[in-house]
Amino acid sequence: MSYTVCVVYHSGYGHTARQAEAVSEGAGSVDGVTCSTIPVEDLFDSESASWATLDGANAIIIGCPTYMGSPSSAMKQFMEASSGRWMEQKWADKLAAGFTNSGSQNGDKQNTLVDIATFAAQHGMVWINLNLMPGNNSSGGSIEDLNRLGASLGAMAQSNVDQGPEHGPTDADLKTATALGKRVAESAKRWG
Amino acid sequence: MSYTVCVVYHSGYGHTARQAEAVSEGAGSVDGVTCSTIPVEDLFDSESASWATLDGANAIIIGCPTYMGSPSSAMKQFMEASSGRWMEQKWADKLAAGFTNSGSQNGDKQNTLVDIATFAAQHGMVWINLNLMPGNNSSGGSIEDLNRLGASLGAMAQSNVDQGPEHGPTDADLKTATALGKRVAESAKRWG
Amino acid sequence: MSYTVCVVYHSGYGHTARQAEAVSEGAGSVDGVTCSTIPVEDLFDSESASWATLDGANAIIIGCPTYMGSPSSAMKQFMEASSGRWMEQKWADKLAAGFTNSGSQNGDKQNTLVDIATFAAQHGMVWINLNLMPGNNSSGGSIEDLNRLGASLGAMAQSNVDQGPEHGPTDADLKTATALGKRVAESAKRWG
Amino acid sequence: MSYTVCVVYHSGYGHTARQAEAVSEGAGSVDGVTCSTIPVEDLFDSESASWATLDGANAIIIGCPTYMGSPSSAMKQFMEASSGRWMEQKWADKLAAGFTNSGSQNGDKQNTLVDIATFAAQHGMVWINLNLMPGNNSSGGSIEDLNRLGASLGAMAQSNVDQGPEHGPTDADLKTATALGKRVAESAKRWG
Repeated sequence: MSYTVCVVYHSGYGHTARQAEAVSEGAGSVDGVTCSTIPVEDLFDSESASWATLDGANAIIIGCPTYMGSPSSAMKQFMEASSGRWMEQKWADKLAAGFTNSGSQNGDKQNTLVDIATFAAQHGMVWINLNLMPGNNSSGGSIEDLNRLGASLGAMAQSNVDQGPEHGPTDADLKTATALGKRVAESAKRWG
Repeated sequence: MSYTVCVVYHSGYGHTARQAEAVSEGAGSVDGVTCSTIPVEDLFDSESASWATLDGANAIIIGCPTYMGSPSSAMKQFMEASSGRWMEQKWADKLAAGFTNSGSQNGDKQNTLVDIATFAAQHGMVWINLNLMPGNNSSGGSIEDLNRLGASLGAMAQSNVDQGPEHGPTDADLKTATALGKRVAESAKRWG
Repeated sequence: MSYTVCVVYHSGYGHTARQAEAVSEGAGSVDGVTCSTIPVEDLFDSESASWATLDGANAIIIGCPTYMGSPSSAMKQFMEASSGRWMEQKWADKLAAGFTNSGSQNGDKQNTLVDIATFAAQHGMVWINLNLMPGNNSSGGSIEDLNRLGASLGAMAQSNVDQGPEHGPTDADLKTATALGKRVAESAKRWG
Repeated sequence: MSYTVCVVYHSGYGHTARQAEAVSEGAGSVDGVTCSTIPVEDLFDSESASWATLDGANAIIIGCPTYMGSPSSAMKQFMEASSGRWMEQKWADKLAAGFTNSGSQNGDKQNTLVDIATFAAQHGMVWINLNLMPGNNSSGGSIEDLNRLGASLGAMAQSNVDQGPEHGPTDADLKTATALGKRVAESAKRWG
């Protein structure tokens, strides 16, 4: 049997797009799993074939920037567009996970993950957490540690506000994103 | 001296607009306070005069529906459009408060209030809470009690999903909204 | 193969204990699943055999009152006592779910569910949501609807503050709790 | 006229105690403001004179470690002990603010600030935010920047898990705490 994971993301300046690619890479690296990546803009048209891709997926991983303390407006536009499927509980029992990027180390990114997890809960989906111990939390730690930002509900990344996506998110944050993608794909196989 | 309160709101179907009117009524009922009400759509144009109204206000009260577990996309669009003012911390030390409406009793409305409060925090604003004890929480309670939904960070309202804004939010929820508006206006005078 | 679900709960006055029983009843009703119920006080002794029960469980469902806007102190005492297991990630990949009761309709119960879900995330557990559409949200709705409080991350219950546990939580809230227990048990079988 | 600020804190290993001292130092540095610092343990006895100190304060600043994703059990014990005052809304219209420390950079500290802010909201208090732009978010940034963790609802600090309080929180985090204390004291004077 084969499994499919979809990564749905919004990216304002390209940083979160890189994080999304890293998540996809992780998901796609798992035997028997294929991963597709969908920018939210593709879903603004309710006739887009990408909706069917989502409907057929075993797992949906959702990511966007944290803007002004919560998920970006474009991501929320996708969430609202999914309300017809919510009414039918069409996505119930799929797996879900989340990721977010912002300029600051914390930047209220937890709110974004809580909102994405709540969205998944409304859809009756099962939430896959990051499952990585916090890094960079001891005298021997460094910003190159996996999960250096100490997230738990999903993957967090930080990108400098004065630099383009070729400079950020940091390598550690991209590796963390890849680990999340891999975990979701493996969980999809186990969940069946 | 005179004080000004602005109510910035988004409403998808008119229910939250009624809640916004109730908030405005409360704010405007306080001597020496004038209140203006701005739909977020007016702020999508960065040249709109409504931005100057916000810049001049002593307090900004922000409200929107809770859609799919968090603030509506249109409200987030306004929040993102305010990022230039955030960079300058132009609104620091203004007062802020929040309200939200949704179809269900709870409907994850707390997430919306947390996100609005966090937005206000990023702007360096001071957060005015609802300051009403929970109603409808004892054997003698009823759905006509003030703050019958038991909110604390702001005002919550519930409107039936199969009825238009002429039927909802309930009277109790509108009175709760009015109490929040009044409290913010009085706080603006005290804060000076 | 047989599966085990543990319900860990704190109850100050007996209302949440009734909710915990309802959750247990739901979990235990599923073929091939046995359910045990552990009051948090049993876990205050690190030598208690109940810790081994938790270690051996396929799923852990956690519930407590919402006191002053977040999980009760006693529940937090258990969470902190689990930190040794967290260090070893001994509970990673178990399933988890949550429930909470308070006197008011909302009462900031969402915070409690977010905190329990975050706790589960730190342990690397997989989060099972309530998966029930909101009830009591239309003109034909009533407080006897399943999920009448409109929760999504877990099960919520409301009990009048002037009445003992023989009067609350309401029947609808107890049935909602039972549905959560059943869902977690079925998910444990599917997760394997 | 003179104003009083109380810092109520819990500290498990001394790191948060240092953060509390820094907050106090900031509050006490403001002309006309006196600041007292109360460990939560002093408030476990309902006859303690510290309760009267709180009752008389213009502002209460609350801080604790983030343990397993939310406020520490000891802090929650204090919150629950304040429920008699909540019933009377005895602290309504006081100012409130919050801070938290944990081992990891993020460590779900946002949950703790949300819970403290919600607690203050239940008491009808007015919430004073951190009001510092995020630091360490550009190519020229460093971990010595004020608000290097990018918090907004309150002050965050990070302390290495393998080092005692003589090594952490970092200087930047302590300065951030001091800035919060100062802001609350100044706000107390303005609020009157």
